[in-house]
Amino acid sequence: MVSLRTDKKQMKLFALNSNYPMAEKISQAIGVPLGKLSSRQFSDGEIQINIEESVRGFDIYIIQSTSFPVNNHLMELLIMVDACNRASANSVNLVIPYFGYARQDRTAAPREPITAKLVANMLVKAGVTRVLTLDLHAVQVQGFFDIPVDNLYTVPLFAEHYCKMGLTGEDVVVVSPKNSGVKRARSLAEHLDAPIAIIDYAQDDSERSEGYIIGDVAGKKAILIDDILNTGRTFSEAAKIVHDAGAVEIYAVSSHGLFVKGAAEKIDAAPIKEILVTDSVATKEKTPKNLKYITASELMGDAILRIHERRPVSPLFSYQKKD
Amino acid sequence: MVSLRTDKKQMKLFALNSNYPMAEKISQAIGVPLGKLSSRQFSDGEIQINIEESVRGFDIYIIQSTSFPVNNHLMELLIMVDACNRASANSVNLVIPYFGYARQDRTAAPREPITAKLVANMLVKAGVTRVLTLDLHAVQVQGFFDIPVDNLYTVPLFAEHYCKMGLTGEDVVVVSPKNSGVKRARSLAEHLDAPIAIIDYAQDDSERSEGYIIGDVAGKKAILIDDILNTGRTFSEAAKIVHDAGAVEIYAVSSHGLFVKGAAEKIDAAPIKEILVTDSVATKEKTPKNLKYITASELMGDAILRIHERRPVSPLFSYQKKD
Amino acid sequence: MVSLRTDKKQMKLFALNSNYPMAEKISQAIGVPLGKLSSRQFSDGEIQINIEESVRGFDIYIIQSTSFPVNNHLMELLIMVDACNRASANSVNLVIPYFGYARQDRTAAPREPITAKLVANMLVKAGVTRVLTLDLHAVQVQGFFDIPVDNLYTVPLFAEHYCKMGLTGEDVVVVSPKNSGVKRARSLAEHLDAPIAIIDYAQDDSERSEGYIIGDVAGKKAILIDDILNTGRTFSEAAKIVHDAGAVEIYAVSSHGLFVKGAAEKIDAAPIKEILVTDSVATKEKTPKNLKYITASELMGDAILRIHERRPVSPLFSYQKKD
Amino acid sequence: MVSLRTDKKQMKLFALNSNYPMAEKISQAIGVPLGKLSSRQFSDGEIQINIEESVRGFDIYIIQSTSFPVNNHLMELLIMVDACNRASANSVNLVIPYFGYARQDRTAAPREPITAKLVANMLVKAGVTRVLTLDLHAVQVQGFFDIPVDNLYTVPLFAEHYCKMGLTGEDVVVVSPKNSGVKRARSLAEHLDAPIAIIDYAQDDSERSEGYIIGDVAGKKAILIDDILNTGRTFSEAAKIVHDAGAVEIYAVSSHGLFVKGAAEKIDAAPIKEILVTDSVATKEKTPKNLKYITASELMGDAILRIHERRPVSPLFSYQKKD
Amino acid sequence: MVSLRTDKKQMKLFALNSNYPMAEKISQAIGVPLGKLSSRQFSDGEIQINIEESVRGFDIYIIQSTSFPVNNHLMELLIMVDACNRASANSVNLVIPYFGYARQDRTAAPREPITAKLVANMLVKAGVTRVLTLDLHAVQVQGFFDIPVDNLYTVPLFAEHYCKMGLTGEDVVVVSPKNSGVKRARSLAEHLDAPIAIIDYAQDDSERSEGYIIGDVAGKKAILIDDILNTGRTFSEAAKIVHDAGAVEIYAVSSHGLFVKGAAEKIDAAPIKEILVTDSVATKEKTPKNLKYITASELMGDAILRIHERRPVSPLFSYQKKD
Amino acid sequence: MVSLRTDKKQMKLFALNSNYPMAEKISQAIGVPLGKLSSRQFSDGEIQINIEESVRGFDIYIIQSTSFPVNNHLMELLIMVDACNRASANSVNLVIPYFGYARQDRTAAPREPITAKLVANMLVKAGVTRVLTLDLHAVQVQGFFDIPVDNLYTVPLFAEHYCKMGLTGEDVVVVSPKNSGVKRARSLAEHLDAPIAIIDYAQDDSERSEGYIIGDVAGKKAILIDDILNTGRTFSEAAKIVHDAGAVEIYAVSSHGLFVKGAAEKIDAAPIKEILVTDSVATKEKTPKNLKYITASELMGDAILRIHERRPVSPLFSYQKKD
Repeated sequence: MVSLRTDKKQMKLFALNSNYPMAEKISQAIGVPLGKLSSRQFSDGEIQINIEESVRGFDIYIIQSTSFPVNNHLMELLIMVDACNRASANSVNLVIPYFGYARQDRTAAPREPITAKLVANMLVKAGVTRVLTLDLHAVQVQGFFDIPVDNLYTVPLFAEHYCKMGLTGEDVVVVSPKNSGVKRARSLAEHLDAPIAIIDYAQDDSERSEGYIIGDVAGKKAILIDDILNTGRTFSEAAKIVHDAGAVEIYAVSSHGLFVKGAAEKIDAAPIKEILVTDSVATKEKTPKNLKYITASELMGDAILRIHERRPVSPLFSYQKKD
Repeated sequence: MVSLRTDKKQMKLFALNSNYPMAEKISQAIGVPLGKLSSRQFSDGEIQINIEESVRGFDIYIIQSTSFPVNNHLMELLIMVDACNRASANSVNLVIPYFGYARQDRTAAPREPITAKLVANMLVKAGVTRVLTLDLHAVQVQGFFDIPVDNLYTVPLFAEHYCKMGLTGEDVVVVSPKNSGVKRARSLAEHLDAPIAIIDYAQDDSERSEGYIIGDVAGKKAILIDDILNTGRTFSEAAKIVHDAGAVEIYAVSSHGLFVKGAAEKIDAAPIKEILVTDSVATKEKTPKNLKYITASELMGDAILRIHERRPVSPLFSYQKKD
Repeated sequence: MVSLRTDKKQMKLFALNSNYPMAEKISQAIGVPLGKLSSRQFSDGEIQINIEESVRGFDIYIIQSTSFPVNNHLMELLIMVDACNRASANSVNLVIPYFGYARQDRTAAPREPITAKLVANMLVKAGVTRVLTLDLHAVQVQGFFDIPVDNLYTVPLFAEHYCKMGLTGEDVVVVSPKNSGVKRARSLAEHLDAPIAIIDYAQDDSERSEGYIIGDVAGKKAILIDDILNTGRTFSEAAKIVHDAGAVEIYAVSSHGLFVKGAAEKIDAAPIKEILVTDSVATKEKTPKNLKYITASELMGDAILRIHERRPVSPLFSYQKKD
Repeated sequence: MVSLRTDKKQMKLFALNSNYPMAEKISQAIGVPLGKLSSRQFSDGEIQINIEESVRGFDIYIIQSTSFPVNNHLMELLIMVDACNRASANSVNLVIPYFGYARQDRTAAPREPITAKLVANMLVKAGVTRVLTLDLHAVQVQGFFDIPVDNLYTVPLFAEHYCKMGLTGEDVVVVSPKNSGVKRARSLAEHLDAPIAIIDYAQDDSERSEGYIIGDVAGKKAILIDDILNTGRTFSEAAKIVHDAGAVEIYAVSSHGLFVKGAAEKIDAAPIKEILVTDSVATKEKTPKNLKYITASELMGDAILRIHERRPVSPLFSYQKKD
Repeated sequence: MVSLRTDKKQMKLFALNSNYPMAEKISQAIGVPLGKLSSRQFSDGEIQINIEESVRGFDIYIIQSTSFPVNNHLMELLIMVDACNRASANSVNLVIPYFGYARQDRTAAPREPITAKLVANMLVKAGVTRVLTLDLHAVQVQGFFDIPVDNLYTVPLFAEHYCKMGLTGEDVVVVSPKNSGVKRARSLAEHLDAPIAIIDYAQDDSERSEGYIIGDVAGKKAILIDDILNTGRTFSEAAKIVHDAGAVEIYAVSSHGLFVKGAAEKIDAAPIKEILVTDSVATKEKTPKNLKYITASELMGDAILRIHERRPVSPLFSYQKKD
Repeated sequence: MVSLRTDKKQMKLFALNSNYPMAEKISQAIGVPLGKLSSRQFSDGEIQINIEESVRGFDIYIIQSTSFPVNNHLMELLIMVDACNRASANSVNLVIPYFGYARQDRTAAPREPITAKLVANMLVKAGVTRVLTLDLHAVQVQGFFDIPVDNLYTVPLFAEHYCKMGLTGEDVVVVSPKNSGVKRARSLAEHLDAPIAIIDYAQDDSERSEGYIIGDVAGKKAILIDDILNTGRTFSEAAKIVHDAGAVEIYAVSSHGLFVKGAAEKIDAAPIKEILVTDSVATKEKTPKNLKYITASELMGDAILRIHERRPVSPLFSYQKKD
């Protein structure tokens, strides 16, 4: 066996400004304090970072979701990476629970950028050693990097939650609220021994209200699953369709709860019994009444320790069904 | 307007060994002869290329599918790119109708490579200027490159074929034979004004025989659509399921017909009335009896000319339904 | 002589969101219309750009000041560069009248980033061909790039303005309001045949109020010169010192007028007769009453044409005193 | 002294498919087991690798000769390197006993590639840390890399063999079978205290049968030496010339025995008493009757340990004549 | 705390040919012997380096000022870096007390190179891990690198020297002999609690004799400060101006004493009581009579140890006034 | 056919300081004047270049041999490349008749650099587009570059010279004065229809006086051929051996005549009737009495034009024997 580095002495953990509560939970989960850091934004919008303790020779882990305001959070991250490298950090590891711009992963229309690749290139050019992230919108984004990227899954966390609630078996149906997310629904369905259904729309997003359901939901408890909950529109429209099709109870679950302005109202108006999201994003907007947060901080903390101690991260990818 | 270069004098077209018939069709379609080239494989397996006419200052277009034997065809392509660059070509443009290794686009299991990204990196490092390809397995592979990649679509070609056959409207259903290809089925369905259905499997590929259908196919003419036809297993099993579910006629269409050994027999044994593929791959194996080739050479040739003449390629992405 | 490309047919000019008025002036000055472009910011803060006309084969010039909000404007610029390159632009030339983050050009304190270099690296990695900018805070920032950077000077513009006003000769003194900007004062002084003076502060910026003047201003008309007018504090304090030292009239001139909130009030309260800035920054904040804009759009437009037509830009660096 | 890492705990050794017997010998020689690995080739020719034990934080040594079929073996190697890097290996060290494509090290004719450089670029781009190889065709290929390359020599191994046989002194002559390999003959000759001779051909390889000998072989025991034994033609023709010139016994030695189809017959028909090669290549073709293998596995294993333990490899380059 | 590496076992120190005396002092200061090395220049001017002890796995520190003859010293340094990397050094750290070409840090005139950036690029491309230097001409040159650069300051050394001599307070004035070095004068002035003055010239260097003083020196002890003492012209002319303006005693201090031919005579003829420089440059030319060397070897040695032991270098940047 | 650019309007030719006479001959041969340029070396050894005419948009050809003093000439070349790129040259093409450091092309002893590769890397990093050179010491150095390198041969020039003198056929023998240059001798021999012979030495260069001849020279006119004539020792010793072996007349020819101090005397003392070299190096040392220069300027000029006009350079590689 390789000599494991279990003393945590050579690592330092820093939190930037996007999601301090989650960073604190991760810090507590792994018993490593958050490093001292000053990150200010001047009146002209420029960010200035001062790292207030030595990083020379340390393995640095920086926790930052590139959520709203994404450009500020991304630049803050890039500047911090530059500072760490110029200050002779041994390695610069990013912990990005929510990876912004991930949906811009292809040229959907002529002359579009691939901004997710641009972001990957920026991070690598700034000198990042490794990335740890959570439920990337498209797994292919891993391949946008040539450095190691560990992408943790949220479905096992969600499955555990629903199993405890007894939401398993043929009485349940896992519904993908759009035709491009079937893989995620399929994965949750297997954990719950349940069938799946799909809401199909025209490709042109503007006529999304004409969605219809493929598969059987009548008389079942439906769980809608998506990766990003942004405006709430996808879930609220899907819930209506599923409800009209005879589902008896409707749940919704999403890895990342952005909740932009107006999302809470939209969700609250839909026939959804419980909304479940991880704490990957710290929104400042209003959230729905029946929202429940499930923390991914222990999962991510465990991965950080495994990375640092050079133990495999792969065991975190599989989920043990508790019989 | 930018001054268009319409005389074709500054371009040269070369074909490597994977798909000479398609290269000849492209050559004829655009009126540019194939350049002289010797590409030999020695008894020790090494490939040696001699370009037998000057490429200095020319824009070079190399036609090569990285189909079976993929490693030979890929190395032949890389060596040709090296030769062109060292011989002072002005630009080296690849025309890759079938892009091998495209399915290895993510780490599906721990410690897996992302070979599609590796291939992209190899091509770029060898000095490629631009890539033109056809119906990539995952569109995100475009983002594996930082050079321009034009990915042409096959669905408009297929739609035109089926429209001519009258396969449109509610009597028809477009079926994705696996739950990860819904987007492609959705796209064809819109061209045909038809609904879609999906064959769902467990994630573990080994139990794929337990597939079942989501959506309604009874009494309809079903068109199975996939991007790569390799062993024929996906289509033959899907055809059986769709047949058992009451479809009255079954068609199958795939962008790339690899047809490995045994595929013809498998397809021939399935209740499929017609198999449609493009000529992106020149297989040396036996092909099914009811196979029909539709050429993509005019589409690709048109794109080559547009690239060379600096006209937008985007018009080729959209399909005009003929009323 | 190299064959000049004087027809402007191969160039396209695009304006992003930071300074549309200046972009329009440049467009008019050189007779090239602004290209069609949609740049939206979604509710989650992500920017999406669609270039609405072909850029394939064109030399693209993008006008964007990376002023407040600097991170949004910088990301918008990077995304646009990515889009242009993926859409096969022949070259991507940036016109950056105000180059944000330029003051973070060294590690002033331990473990500080060098954000100006980070920005340069990001731009180059995104695929920029060339940069045209105006009065960089430190000329060494040119060396942060390995691509051509043309840095135009504002002093000739200012000198022409003051010459017309008769502000020349021994009755005038050009004052650097801080000890690090002497070169700029020296340059204006030579254009005006005037001596210089300097306001000296302790290095620690926090005690800046203890500044004192070196050199002679009594009975003279003083022109304070700086490159960036941000909070207005440097000018207002310097004006007070110069006033107390007996200057009879006080002018202030700055290349870039950021005018953050409160700057206008500070300037208005100081004994400054006229504030002169270029239009490099389009502020949305309140500006001082005695503010006068001098446009740099003709200068920058002339440079764009020279670059495009492959004529030397160097003549723009020198200023011909009109006798 | 640097702290040596003598416990081998941090290293892992993997063998790919080209030369498993030699890999096993190396493994035994250094007491490090071969790691678990699955490398399959699909029916469409694509290779898929799964590393079946953790490599995170380990120094990985991969043993692979890029011999026939060279393109498959090279791609297998590149894919393995990608997998190791994405799985966070600490370093990826290649052990390449036979380095394929090494003879394509220059543009011998107009518009030829330099494939050996292409291969070097591919390996480096895939993320290789270091290369260990054996008797490169041209030592300049080391310079094709900017990473450390240790090129071990086979001549000391061969010299030891011939010394044991008493083949030393003036009764022996070392013959270079072509005019470009004189350095290798010179080196063996010095170990054996023997003179050299050279077979000279016209440059145009096609008239090689017109070769003649320069130097004196009459009445001597001749040892023909070359680096690569491929078709056997060079040795069989040289043996005939040397025989005709009066040599009394003829031996032949080559670092790498490729033995393509037909080589055995050609060698068997020539007046060669013993053919000696290392085990760098595991051929599946027929080998000559009087072939003798000498293993380089201990030499390479020793080098691996020295690299891993950070001891100099240079002692392996010199050979101690045993008096 | 990170585990400090205090045993020095893993580091090796090498001196090249520019400044062996300083290298020996550094070696003694930190108790690490200079490694064995042969660096010869052939009759055709080519330099050949042989490192005569193993560097495999070691952290290498190379001491070399790129002073006269700068091109030889720079190439010697680059070649040594190449040799270290190919011989598997763990890291290659440069100690460059005097960084040649640093003044060519911008395009002062049209079509000028930025040679300081070129040098930085060459060093990085050759494989340098880190640079330690002393009082860079412009601190922005740090940003020419993307690797860590620690730039030590000489002002604290000089301040200590003058404090011991009692040269502090209002009777003293620190004079910048040109208008671009005010920051350095300001810094020394703060250490000595003294005011500053500036010699102002026309920008055109050719009319430098017309310089005049801004600020008050009459009756004071003036300390002229500059970073590079090359021809001695700047100091000799400034001394004359300051003397004419009534200074009672004149001192001069410079970080780097190049002393080209004729400099000693020029300085000796000027009214300068004492010239102070560090030992960063070992000149072979005649030096002024009243020259005093102050060694920077302890400061640089301390930094080397801190870098090697992974302790912060930042404490060396600040100077503690001894009350 | 590609549109040839035959007007030379878009090219500019510049000569640096190593070989101005040859540059002028090339300039005359192709009818393109040498561009205006100031390249000075300051008293501290630093080189400063000012290009005194616009290079914006031009294809630049820079003529410079990296001969003695090689480090100055190499740095001058690198600085010129940097200046051209920052001044927006369209391409920067190097014409390097003598490529210094080419012999350091491998690690001949442990821990040696590969300086020829280092030089290649420096040139490429500085921004070179292409290299044109003459008889590289080892052709593999071409592969040290990934940009196009055209390496012209001198043997056809030499062959023409000797054919005119009647030195052809069996009465002549071409002798390689060392065992590593047989290829060059072979090539000349074929042009002259003559046999070859070889001087063989022990590998250890220090005992080179023990050389002996392999092959037959008695009664023949011997032509010694080598690529680099540096100290003259190789030729003078070879001439003695060949003379002792009965050659009746001895000629010597070398591509590059460095002639370091003492070489002329050594050659003059040897039994050599005529020494022939090209004008690739402009030595300032004494040259032998019987030295004859043959110009390569027309050959190189022809190649420059072919490169510029995008015609193949390959015809220059072959030599037409005049019957």
